[in-house]
Amino acid sequence: MSYPKPLRRLVGLLSRLPGIGEKTATRLALHMLKMPPGSVRELGEAIAAIPDAVINCSKCFNFADVDPCALCTDPARRDDLICVVEDPTDIVPIEKSGEYKGRYHVLGGAISPIDGVMPEDLHIRELLDRLAQGGIGEVILATNLTAEGESTASYLAGVLKPLNMRVTRIAYGMPMGSDLEYTDEITVGRAIKGRREV
Amino acid sequence: MSYPKPLRRLVGLLSRLPGIGEKTATRLALHMLKMPPGSVRELGEAIAAIPDAVINCSKCFNFADVDPCALCTDPARRDDLICVVEDPTDIVPIEKSGEYKGRYHVLGGAISPIDGVMPEDLHIRELLDRLAQGGIGEVILATNLTAEGESTASYLAGVLKPLNMRVTRIAYGMPMGSDLEYTDEITVGRAIKGRREV
Repeated sequence: MSYPKPLRRLVGLLSRLPGIGEKTATRLALHMLKMPPGSVRELGEAIAAIPDAVINCSKCFNFADVDPCALCTDPARRDDLICVVEDPTDIVPIEKSGEYKGRYHVLGGAISPIDGVMPEDLHIRELLDRLAQGGIGEVILATNLTAEGESTASYLAGVLKPLNMRVTRIAYGMPMGSDLEYTDEITVGRAIKGRREV
Repeated sequence: MSYPKPLRRLVGLLSRLPGIGEKTATRLALHMLKMPPGSVRELGEAIAAIPDAVINCSKCFNFADVDPCALCTDPARRDDLICVVEDPTDIVPIEKSGEYKGRYHVLGGAISPIDGVMPEDLHIRELLDRLAQGGIGEVILATNLTAEGESTASYLAGVLKPLNMRVTRIAYGMPMGSDLEYTDEITVGRAIKGRREV
């Protein structure tokens, strides 16, 4: 390589990002040399600022720029419903669906003993604290439909049921636009089991 | 999107990079939230610093962190040979080949009237200034083997020939590991025309 040191260093740092190999990192770094310096600085400063600019809401643990976050303080949302998800990113598709207008609680992962993630590593205590304050009629368990998400949902169901509130799980079934022929048998099985009258 | 503003802004800035769509930009931004804050700041600062850290050598117009650049000042390289390339990135494969130990001159592009790039927009005057200082026995035209690179090489050959020095063009031919069947006819034609005795 005959590139100057700062460029090689930038290529090295970029290629540590997921899905960015050395070729892509080089292409990106060279592109940055051609960009207006002001835009490059804007990008670099936005990246450098992100650890301080994005915090976790102390109430629901969603990503936030204010604490508590906008979803926790929005007066137009229902206070008696809490939807429990694994990660902040899981909130996006639920919000996009437009089907939910309650509050959220982000666990920060799913129970996975093999990865060393136990219930006490998740924000379950904080969920119980929120529920203890009263006023919650239903907790929707929206952890992923993976082995870890399912165990986490079962674990939470066991903990929450005795608290005398409605505990629900998001529906299993065939995804929209899917084809029986190409859908795995577990999904098909659950779609049949969960069939509804029309 | 229920992501906080600084995160959405970062996604917007990242998705302006070539080959980075909104999905990849979101994935990268979310990854940055999980990285150690120190590493994110290191990356951001390296990007923000790049416009000032990487300059163009005032002699050969290669990327540089010192002026003149390391290739211009390396005492182990021959002073009587100049290899003319379009862009700084073209120097990398030549250096990797290990076949060249002279100096370079970066034009900053190729002549392309359709894109508004005329000879006076390239560092041709500066090349002539270097040649006028004497001591150059050969100029190797290593512009790309594209229509623009070819026109630029012809133009330069016309300008340099009267200066009474050797002007050469990198060889046309079949690339290593290539298959006649899958090589375009212009390349094959040139490989036949340029055949050498064995």
